[in-house]
Amino acid sequence: MNYFSSGFKLGILGGGQLGKMMLTDTRKFDIQTYVLDPSADAPCKIGSNVFVQGSLMDFDTVYNFGKQVDVLTFEIEHVNVAALEKLEAEGIKVYPSPKTLRQIQNKGNQKDFYIKNNIPTAPYKRFENLTELKEAVKNGVFTYPFIWKSTEGGYDGNGVKVIRNAESFNGLPDVQCIGEAMIAFKNELAVIVARNPKGEIKTYPVVEMEFHPEANQVEYVICPARIDNTVAHKARTIALNVSEAFNHVGLLAVEMFQTQDDEILVNEVAPRPHNSGHYSIEASYTSQFEQHLRAILNLPLGNTDSKAAGIMVNLVGAEGYTGNVVYENIETILAKDGVTPHIYGKKETRPFRKMGHVTIVNEDIAEARRIAQEVKNTIRVISGQ
Amino acid sequence: MNYFSSGFKLGILGGGQLGKMMLTDTRKFDIQTYVLDPSADAPCKIGSNVFVQGSLMDFDTVYNFGKQVDVLTFEIEHVNVAALEKLEAEGIKVYPSPKTLRQIQNKGNQKDFYIKNNIPTAPYKRFENLTELKEAVKNGVFTYPFIWKSTEGGYDGNGVKVIRNAESFNGLPDVQCIGEAMIAFKNELAVIVARNPKGEIKTYPVVEMEFHPEANQVEYVICPARIDNTVAHKARTIALNVSEAFNHVGLLAVEMFQTQDDEILVNEVAPRPHNSGHYSIEASYTSQFEQHLRAILNLPLGNTDSKAAGIMVNLVGAEGYTGNVVYENIETILAKDGVTPHIYGKKETRPFRKMGHVTIVNEDIAEARRIAQEVKNTIRVISGQ
Repeated sequence: MNYFSSGFKLGILGGGQLGKMMLTDTRKFDIQTYVLDPSADAPCKIGSNVFVQGSLMDFDTVYNFGKQVDVLTFEIEHVNVAALEKLEAEGIKVYPSPKTLRQIQNKGNQKDFYIKNNIPTAPYKRFENLTELKEAVKNGVFTYPFIWKSTEGGYDGNGVKVIRNAESFNGLPDVQCIGEAMIAFKNELAVIVARNPKGEIKTYPVVEMEFHPEANQVEYVICPARIDNTVAHKARTIALNVSEAFNHVGLLAVEMFQTQDDEILVNEVAPRPHNSGHYSIEASYTSQFEQHLRAILNLPLGNTDSKAAGIMVNLVGAEGYTGNVVYENIETILAKDGVTPHIYGKKETRPFRKMGHVTIVNEDIAEARRIAQEVKNTIRVISGQ
Repeated sequence: MNYFSSGFKLGILGGGQLGKMMLTDTRKFDIQTYVLDPSADAPCKIGSNVFVQGSLMDFDTVYNFGKQVDVLTFEIEHVNVAALEKLEAEGIKVYPSPKTLRQIQNKGNQKDFYIKNNIPTAPYKRFENLTELKEAVKNGVFTYPFIWKSTEGGYDGNGVKVIRNAESFNGLPDVQCIGEAMIAFKNELAVIVARNPKGEIKTYPVVEMEFHPEANQVEYVICPARIDNTVAHKARTIALNVSEAFNHVGLLAVEMFQTQDDEILVNEVAPRPHNSGHYSIEASYTSQFEQHLRAILNLPLGNTDSKAAGIMVNLVGAEGYTGNVVYENIETILAKDGVTPHIYGKKETRPFRKMGHVTIVNEDIAEARRIAQEVKNTIRVISGQ
């Protein structure tokens, strides 16, 4: 198949920042792209060859969009999977496959899948609704604290809550859910795996999520993780196993806990480029976005090693600001060594909205960490005129 | 000034591959762009916010285009400079300045400028036409071989010829020209300098152009140049002096000869991102395209150091092929370590047309050079269906 400067068409469901960063590489390779997104000014409106405005959840919209392209992928999991299944049955290549997506979209099924495939994960129980879960707590099946997760529709921390006592249930939707043991972890880690249809498979180095000591919010994604080699090796092996169990094609981001005993437990996966891999644009020989393209197009996978240490800081809207975005002090951070801001192109900021990220690259990881902290303390995403 | 996700507008004259690679960074920063190019399917048609089809040499077209933007730059020197001068006089920021452009566009003036500013350059003489030059040869002012250069309109080797004997004059246009001593150089080197309006200035490492031993064609651009530190330091210092002499804003690529005695002579300059800096996209902390934006927007300049050794191979159309382009064996080169093809997006190949480039990045420059040779021997730009 000839992809470069040819009539070949790649379809992408979702036109947000992940799609936008993928378009950097479709442009680099001159691969034609069609993008579907509900928003008229999605970040992918510029940079795609054809932009279609429409719902990602509507069967006909997704089906008709998909019929126009040769290979179809997505940058977001909340899409109409039935339409993908029909497209696949009719010969359109859909990567990652709708089957993987079904297994992943429901967190209960995802957990069952791990158990079935001998992949270590935190103990859990499935419940049809909140009442059943409360009943189980009453009967002593669960003791506080534990984690509640809605099995469907969760995203970026939505649909997940720590249940510390009976009052924690207040406000939770009465939907299918799981109760999960709370893991006292040393580190939250992630490994991105790439796999192509011919079965070539590669893992990126293990990254570490460093949390704010009080706010319990990820502040930095650090590559490589500051863990010992045995643990890193174990994490990469488990991530490989997960990808192979799914027969996954494309990228699979595997989020994991490193327990106090240096066990690795798989938390959850995302079948697409992932926030934990953004550092790779500047730090890796092959960025995760280029790698995703290579994987879904059945091209040889690129080198996943790093050229330098990389640290990523998310740029989220500051509390108390809503409106036209202003990146305060961005010039100050641009003056620092190895600092690259990525601005996603959303016009309106809102508290905690993901507006961009900043990558800090340095030969020396300690120096990168120091600069990352300065960046974090300097730039603010606020609103202005 | 607020550039990021704002109403600010950057204008770019020329929508070819240099503009296309610049758009990678305007998208990364979410800076609005307007691009003017005569071709309806210029590489910049995708990725710019507003694409205008029109002549770069027509006064009104350039003037009316420029009136819409806040800062105007260019990716090609062949533009209507009078229009730029009028725009500048009316308060539009034009970087690099029309004044620099005038000094550079005429190669006779460029050479005079070097002499006036004590910048070492090969000996030359100016002539109003070919007849004057022939007369000078007859009178013994020049002895064969020497270099003929038309003072205006040259590009990519056009407008330059080695004059070995009287027959070499055949077919040359009867235009203003210079005769220049032929330098028996050890190496052809280049240094990219970035300078912003507040006078901050940085040089990239010296790169080396490695020539094919017989064909006398640049085969590889290698960073860092395999020369000793004293020569590298001298080359960077001279490049700095050239940029400061011009009061240049933006990027200035300075092409130089290293003579047999390790003297450095400036050959010519280009006031824009340059082929000799393409390696920087993968190998440098700050790519030349991002650096150009930082410079013309008066932002702090980024680190010009390299993360790894970088080698660039141009992809030009193979002889004997004209028509719809096919990149033969591109999958084979993608399987090699640290190899990134850049496909410019031109549909039609022609013999020697610049269709793309490939960058090879490696910790070890000798290994990069070995892979670069494999790449060069493997990929072919031909035509197909």
